Amino acid sequence: MIAPGTSGYVVQKIDRAERAAIDGLAALGVATVHEAQGRKGLLAEYMRPIYAGARVAGSAVTILAPPCDNWMLHVAIEQLQAGDILVLGTTSPSSAGYFGDLLATSAMARGCAGLVIDAGVRDVKDLTEMGFPVWSKAVHAQGTIKETLGSVNIPVVCAGELVHPGDIVVADDDGVCVVRRDEASEVLAKAQAREANEAAKRARFEAGELGLDIYDMRGRLEKMGLKYV
Amino acid sequence: MIAPGTSGYVVQKIDRAERAAIDGLAALGVATVHEAQGRKGLLAEYMRPIYAGARVAGSAVTILAPPCDNWMLHVAIEQLQAGDILVLGTTSPSSAGYFGDLLATSAMARGCAGLVIDAGVRDVKDLTEMGFPVWSKAVHAQGTIKETLGSVNIPVVCAGELVHPGDIVVADDDGVCVVRRDEASEVLAKAQAREANEAAKRARFEAGELGLDIYDMRGRLEKMGLKYV
Amino acid sequence: MIAPGTSGYVVQKIDRAERAAIDGLAALGVATVHEAQGRKGLLAEYMRPIYAGARVAGSAVTILAPPCDNWMLHVAIEQLQAGDILVLGTTSPSSAGYFGDLLATSAMARGCAGLVIDAGVRDVKDLTEMGFPVWSKAVHAQGTIKETLGSVNIPVVCAGELVHPGDIVVADDDGVCVVRRDEASEVLAKAQAREANEAAKRARFEAGELGLDIYDMRGRLEKMGLKYV
Amino acid sequence: MIAPGTSGYVVQKIDRAERAAIDGLAALGVATVHEAQGRKGLLAEYMRPIYAGARVAGSAVTILAPPCDNWMLHVAIEQLQAGDILVLGTTSPSSAGYFGDLLATSAMARGCAGLVIDAGVRDVKDLTEMGFPVWSKAVHAQGTIKETLGSVNIPVVCAGELVHPGDIVVADDDGVCVVRRDEASEVLAKAQAREANEAAKRARFEAGELGLDIYDMRGRLEKMGLKYV
Amino acid sequence: MIAPGTSGYVVQKIDRAERAAIDGLAALGVATVHEAQGRKGLLAEYMRPIYAGARVAGSAVTILAPPCDNWMLHVAIEQLQAGDILVLGTTSPSSAGYFGDLLATSAMARGCAGLVIDAGVRDVKDLTEMGFPVWSKAVHAQGTIKETLGSVNIPVVCAGELVHPGDIVVADDDGVCVVRRDEASEVLAKAQAREANEAAKRARFEAGELGLDIYDMRGRLEKMGLKYV
Amino acid sequence: MIAPGTSGYVVQKIDRAERAAIDGLAALGVATVHEAQGRKGLLAEYMRPIYAGARVAGSAVTILAPPCDNWMLHVAIEQLQAGDILVLGTTSPSSAGYFGDLLATSAMARGCAGLVIDAGVRDVKDLTEMGFPVWSKAVHAQGTIKETLGSVNIPVVCAGELVHPGDIVVADDDGVCVVRRDEASEVLAKAQAREANEAAKRARFEAGELGLDIYDMRGRLEKMGLKYV
Repeated sequence: MIAPGTSGYVVQKIDRAERAAIDGLAALGVATVHEAQGRKGLLAEYMRPIYAGARVAGSAVTILAPPCDNWMLHVAIEQLQAGDILVLGTTSPSSAGYFGDLLATSAMARGCAGLVIDAGVRDVKDLTEMGFPVWSKAVHAQGTIKETLGSVNIPVVCAGELVHPGDIVVADDDGVCVVRRDEASEVLAKAQAREANEAAKRARFEAGELGLDIYDMRGRLEKMGLKYV
Repeated sequence: MIAPGTSGYVVQKIDRAERAAIDGLAALGVATVHEAQGRKGLLAEYMRPIYAGARVAGSAVTILAPPCDNWMLHVAIEQLQAGDILVLGTTSPSSAGYFGDLLATSAMARGCAGLVIDAGVRDVKDLTEMGFPVWSKAVHAQGTIKETLGSVNIPVVCAGELVHPGDIVVADDDGVCVVRRDEASEVLAKAQAREANEAAKRARFEAGELGLDIYDMRGRLEKMGLKYV
Repeated sequence: MIAPGTSGYVVQKIDRAERAAIDGLAALGVATVHEAQGRKGLLAEYMRPIYAGARVAGSAVTILAPPCDNWMLHVAIEQLQAGDILVLGTTSPSSAGYFGDLLATSAMARGCAGLVIDAGVRDVKDLTEMGFPVWSKAVHAQGTIKETLGSVNIPVVCAGELVHPGDIVVADDDGVCVVRRDEASEVLAKAQAREANEAAKRARFEAGELGLDIYDMRGRLEKMGLKYV
Repeated sequence: MIAPGTSGYVVQKIDRAERAAIDGLAALGVATVHEAQGRKGLLAEYMRPIYAGARVAGSAVTILAPPCDNWMLHVAIEQLQAGDILVLGTTSPSSAGYFGDLLATSAMARGCAGLVIDAGVRDVKDLTEMGFPVWSKAVHAQGTIKETLGSVNIPVVCAGELVHPGDIVVADDDGVCVVRRDEASEVLAKAQAREANEAAKRARFEAGELGLDIYDMRGRLEKMGLKYV
Repeated sequence: MIAPGTSGYVVQKIDRAERAAIDGLAALGVATVHEAQGRKGLLAEYMRPIYAGARVAGSAVTILAPPCDNWMLHVAIEQLQAGDILVLGTTSPSSAGYFGDLLATSAMARGCAGLVIDAGVRDVKDLTEMGFPVWSKAVHAQGTIKETLGSVNIPVVCAGELVHPGDIVVADDDGVCVVRRDEASEVLAKAQAREANEAAKRARFEAGELGLDIYDMRGRLEKMGLKYV
Repeated sequence: MIAPGTSGYVVQKIDRAERAAIDGLAALGVATVHEAQGRKGLLAEYMRPIYAGARVAGSAVTILAPPCDNWMLHVAIEQLQAGDILVLGTTSPSSAGYFGDLLATSAMARGCAGLVIDAGVRDVKDLTEMGFPVWSKAVHAQGTIKETLGSVNIPVVCAGELVHPGDIVVADDDGVCVVRRDEASEVLAKAQAREANEAAKRARFEAGELGLDIYDMRGRLEKMGLKYV
């Protein structure tokens, strides 16, 4: 495997999780998946969607890109399969607009489900109308160049989280979460159990029961010394 | 009264302003209320609504919470009365997602009118659909723990502003403003007068009159040396 | 010409570009215009629209304002002509709410097309309903004073970019770009050519062609040492 | 008592803690004092000393100041007694240079022990040579005006922490901590006990003993499931 | 004159202020010069010296550089005359380390007096030992490339301030200030007057007189409504 | 190998690079090492030393820690060998003071060469006097708890960079760089060659030669269209 941070490589064959697991995780959303896998895998809070309401999951096609240089995005699009999500980290911070409506058109023609980019994006009005979801650090028209190599489908750090090619990326209005491919079915099962449990809890909360009672917290709070005055 | 920053206390009885004053302030909005009380009481600019268009006011039920620990929210919800707003400050900065759809369900069952939190929130798509307004420092799925005590209904600093339990919190797209309970009726009267005055001004502005003339600024500008060239 | 940073002057006569050029640039949007003029003229990424979807262009009526002091906005509104855009830079950073619905009413009565402000704005719900677009550094209810002079229609640095009075300002969801008045027709021609070229490219991308082939990148990538593994 | 955020008042008589308690806290430093009083009272991390190595404690003479307006500093200096520390919060954020060598000369002539300012400071080379310690949010030459009233010796929020006039402020390279006047002797006793305990621990650590053993952590770690592999 | 933001030009002949004026301004420092010219010309507060205690002034040799690309620094060094200061702005934000000990060696061989860079710098331990002062946005080892043109000796925006080639740059621990070449002697005279005035004031402050009396503020404070309680 | 982000594990046996390679890298410094390995491995720019002038290299003993919880530091210290460097990443951002003089005493007793922490540190005056170097995101007295497990000696993301246990960490005033263990000798050789080359260049720069000539840049600049005017 090519080490993270190494430029000059395109890995053409990556393993992907099964579609059923991916779709199952998408249905549950980022917060539930993140909790179900032990509160790991979450990208930094500064990663925000360009429009509200999207929720997707897909296999990561990863990109390591130089600052202000979007060349590798063209290279990566060739590696996409239907349902994949592009995940871009940079070798040095940048908020330039690496990606716009033309690249989105190209990626969508390959079946790409979205972009997660630790940098900037532009043409966001077009992207919104096209229904192409993006989670990014910035929205900015700043143009990029095509002068330096990066890599495609090597492990990359994106917004503080390591993402391997083929990892499952789940993204919605709460942020972006990564699930390791070989943990996908276990995480899905746990997340579904959590969701079922929450559904039951929700009914009790709606009926006016308190978390203090539902979770039986009063005794522990008293033991720790909480005083009601 | 328990001093700000003190953990381990829940104050069960707090005084609230009259509903009429609260509703009156809600109708006027943050900018007008902030100006009417002499430009004080405004929380820091980083406090943003999770969706546009909400405008609420309510009595503050305050929470002091440890970083990444949302235990005290469960304790606070028991103290809510209809129309109250939860206001959470932390003992050390955190952007974790302290609050989501289950807690919102519980708070709404108690009649809670909204949340103002100097930390993160999650499940924002659900919260938006539920119509539960939140003003927060961050949106992030990051989970929290329940290990350390804080306090409920003591004075807390939230986003740079001191909030006492029972203070009136007004929040809309322009931010969040706090009104002291014993100043509520005076501030309301001033804010209504300001609003009335602005309505008259608005008609003159629409007719094309200039602020330079409406506010009679030309003489003072000249005296200060403004040169037209 | 009054030097940037000089307070105390109002320049009453400024030259504006022709309306056709301004409208042509508005139709093309920020990203295309920015690229067409050699990737210059873009304001900093922190300048964000208060609502999504607006796209405008207009001649800059510039304002140099002291921190937390919005007096010069009243002075500037008198200098507006239909279709102009107010552009405000400060002498020291501020995120206070310099501009709200009354000033917007006044500016709209003069035909003002929008505001670009390296500071804060308030009453954003009203501004949104009025359809008055603003690009700002912050949204905050914080009030301002009227105590210190600045200048109107002198060159100002706004969000890291120098703007002369009469420069063309183009703004949309991707940010804000400035075009020098005497370069307007040349930039417009280049931007239209770029747009036409992109339209052709878009069709090829939609048909599934890759950027690697459309832009003939494979040879150069190979020569630079990109390895497919 | 004048409420926090209220402008236009100077409280001339404030109560101060006894000098022995203040000096005792100064000797122990911020981290120890902060721990001893239950991890409360710490100002935000962005408050940094202008030079390394200073450690002071004193009674707070508080200032509420408008943004970019240092008028109230002159008013406050008259209220200083020997050993006091000036503590300044603003009504709206500012990083301007409110304080320089002349004000320091004046404050030192009154016996002032230092300045804690949630804004900027300048002439830092002079202040360093004068040995006048400052903890600030910024260092910047930006000038200020004298146009708007604030208050002196009312409770102020400074860097996220409420400070009452007469509170004890402890400051060193680790930041700034506030101790309530009526808790001073209790906090001092606890802090001294903590210090004594740490001295004993230090010797054991120096001898190579591990915290795992000194604090008897192994059992609890094992019970929580920590696996050595 | 080449317009700001234009890449591809090196202006070889620039006018410089007289050495006496430059040295005079250096002796007075940033805060005094900034005040003397009406509180303008100050670069943003994030520009910090790599070591404390330096104070320099010189004629600006300006550089517009692409993000993460330091090629133009080599071009600029050829344009240096003894006593000049390099001033670098970027076409898009970057914190990469554009400048290190080799470039400093080269610049010093030309008599360069320092560097003001709205980006990053590295080898700061060497630069400190060499006594080459730098004011920068960041210190970071991040390497740069040499692939894209910028310009030398055109007007550039550096840290929010417009700098023309030949402008006088004054820098010390309080930040960086720019003086227009044709205003140099006037600003120097005013700054020297201010300094003389401050020296007189300093003696009175040392003797314990208050600013309230020295500046005769009591009446105006009372008229504005300041209440002593 | 335990996957990044997994809590609850302590890996007791890690492989370390040879001391000679580590010492060789330390002698060359961060900027040279970073360049020699192809501009990769650099931690984010916000990682700053608590005092100037330190330069160290060592094998990484890695720590994954919860926010505001320093329990795992005690666990990690037991795993230290002489010359190792502690590297701490968090599961959610925190600037609390995880590490102070007692932990430093313990770590030094084990021969620890320094700490790289993507969080806060305190007792920095003591640490400076002890000569224990730390690179951190923040300096803050904020206390931490010991309630939640993390891991020791698993791969962690620290300040945006993946660090494996046993990787070589090089740190000085320019930041922190990571070298993979199996690339250590190759990187060392390249870095030494680079250093030798730079020494030769330095002499030519000192003699007044220009980079334009030493690196033979004039032709390429001309071909790219640089115009001297």
